[in-house]
Amino acid sequence: MKKLINAVEDVVKESLAGFCSAHSDIVRLGEAAPFVLRRHLKRGKVALVSGGGSGHEPLHGGFVGEGMLDAAVPGQVFTSPTPDLIIAAIEAADTGGGVLLIVKNYEGDVMNFDMAREMSGKSVATVITDDDVAVETSTYSTGRRGVAGTLIVEKILGAAAEQGRSLAELKALGDRVNAATRSIGIALTSCTVPAAGKPTFELGDDEMEVGVGIHGEPGRRRVKLRPAKEIAAEMVGAITADLGARARGDVILLINGFGGTPLSELYLMYNDVRHGVEAAGGTVARSLVGNFVTSLDMAGCSATVSLLDEELRRLWDAPVHTAALRWGI
Amino acid sequence: MKKLINAVEDVVKESLAGFCSAHSDIVRLGEAAPFVLRRHLKRGKVALVSGGGSGHEPLHGGFVGEGMLDAAVPGQVFTSPTPDLIIAAIEAADTGGGVLLIVKNYEGDVMNFDMAREMSGKSVATVITDDDVAVETSTYSTGRRGVAGTLIVEKILGAAAEQGRSLAELKALGDRVNAATRSIGIALTSCTVPAAGKPTFELGDDEMEVGVGIHGEPGRRRVKLRPAKEIAAEMVGAITADLGARARGDVILLINGFGGTPLSELYLMYNDVRHGVEAAGGTVARSLVGNFVTSLDMAGCSATVSLLDEELRRLWDAPVHTAALRWGI
Repeated sequence: MKKLINAVEDVVKESLAGFCSAHSDIVRLGEAAPFVLRRHLKRGKVALVSGGGSGHEPLHGGFVGEGMLDAAVPGQVFTSPTPDLIIAAIEAADTGGGVLLIVKNYEGDVMNFDMAREMSGKSVATVITDDDVAVETSTYSTGRRGVAGTLIVEKILGAAAEQGRSLAELKALGDRVNAATRSIGIALTSCTVPAAGKPTFELGDDEMEVGVGIHGEPGRRRVKLRPAKEIAAEMVGAITADLGARARGDVILLINGFGGTPLSELYLMYNDVRHGVEAAGGTVARSLVGNFVTSLDMAGCSATVSLLDEELRRLWDAPVHTAALRWGI
Repeated sequence: MKKLINAVEDVVKESLAGFCSAHSDIVRLGEAAPFVLRRHLKRGKVALVSGGGSGHEPLHGGFVGEGMLDAAVPGQVFTSPTPDLIIAAIEAADTGGGVLLIVKNYEGDVMNFDMAREMSGKSVATVITDDDVAVETSTYSTGRRGVAGTLIVEKILGAAAEQGRSLAELKALGDRVNAATRSIGIALTSCTVPAAGKPTFELGDDEMEVGVGIHGEPGRRRVKLRPAKEIAAEMVGAITADLGARARGDVILLINGFGGTPLSELYLMYNDVRHGVEAAGGTVARSLVGNFVTSLDMAGCSATVSLLDEELRRLWDAPVHTAALRWGI
């Protein structure tokens, strides 16, 4: 295992310390516990709190700030944060407007966020994201997995929360965005969890995993590595088959790197995926390309298509000021 | 070789097409030749043109836009762009104020940009960047190499050019920023050039290269992989030894990933490098962490320290709107 770390048990703590120090104008480290808190909370606004296992950086801490999340709760690598940590974040982020939890659909996350919601004694609702079309159940999830589409839910809800919408309105909007969002990923290599010290799974030198999860969970099938155009066609096919006729409209197209793939390849994939989306009748109205929801050092990427209407486009375009997404401010 | 590509000979063209399509609000593909041109050129402003071999994305195309570059000229992977391509970019970017070329110190780049400058028949000056303290000469360079510090030169010059400064003033400012900027990199793995199909160099499973170049050129020495704190201490030591007493002031600290290292490790390195810079008497006034000047899929990172005064800080903070750096707009 070759990683830029000190001790395995300090990876999350030290990375978080670096993150909060580098972006001290936007975030601060929670006082009661190690979570990421928006530096300037807005009184009376519904607070948006997300989180989950570490190893997917910049998700979720990189999305804390004006126009997006109010707090992000990181667990250890690929491990759900504990309820007491989530409760500390809920208490720190709540400024009287209630709290909306945004949780990726993994059993540990759903259970721990749910316990925290019940134990907090506050007005708390939850949006579960499950945008991954690859498989219907998986190693850590019953039902579809929540993956890169989560950032689209977080961005749109963040903008709507800044407008002063109620907790019930935001919960309904989050469910609507999640239902309009589909993703699928492919891996060329495994990730290596620091505590494990070796690759999570083995892939042959000429193989790829189609439909891989963001923890290295198995996908639909393992095939020989193919040209980017063919990979893109399979990804677009899986997404548009699931969306059906709804795919023939304006969309956000997100090409998300898993951490070990260079930006040049992500833009090349964007080129091919975009052509596929357009050939299927979609119009790419907004684009995002980069490493946003990663799987440590895994090589590969995911494609996410999220359907837009006029309201969602305005919310997507609204100002955001976080470490990983920034525009209009 | 596992890469998300179609044909090896189309990698640069297709990645560039994806880039210009994803960011069509900021850039467009040159008409005369494949370079990246700022979509909204500013009449009479000195045009800033940079470029060099591909494989370092988002450098340089990701820095084209308001407040930074007017054009970026990509060569093939790790290969200088030809003079005719550079001339086409100069002609497209020039709006009457003259042109400043920003060139990393590699023999091929310096020669080709210089030929283009002479042949263009326009008012053109050049700033050469050579911020890498690792070695005094290298595989492709006489004198120090230009590496990640180049983006700091480009950002500060971009802001100054927007203010309407003259070509001579910008040339002097660029030389001053370059002289105030030092970098050093380390690699945990080699990069793999698509056309070569195999790693550029071999590193043992427990080895790292200290002082590596952004094309995988040899550094100072090859050592056993060490904890992040020790790596950070060596990097800070190399930089501060070179800066001398000047290191005891306000600085920009840039931790730059080489493409294959996840953001979580970059923030962990930032944490340790920052402590080192502060222990040496420096004050980290501005920070930047991410993949900005990469070496394809190489795992590793560089640290850059750039000395700030009041003028440089204002120029750094000025609005910028590019694909890879954006704030204030």
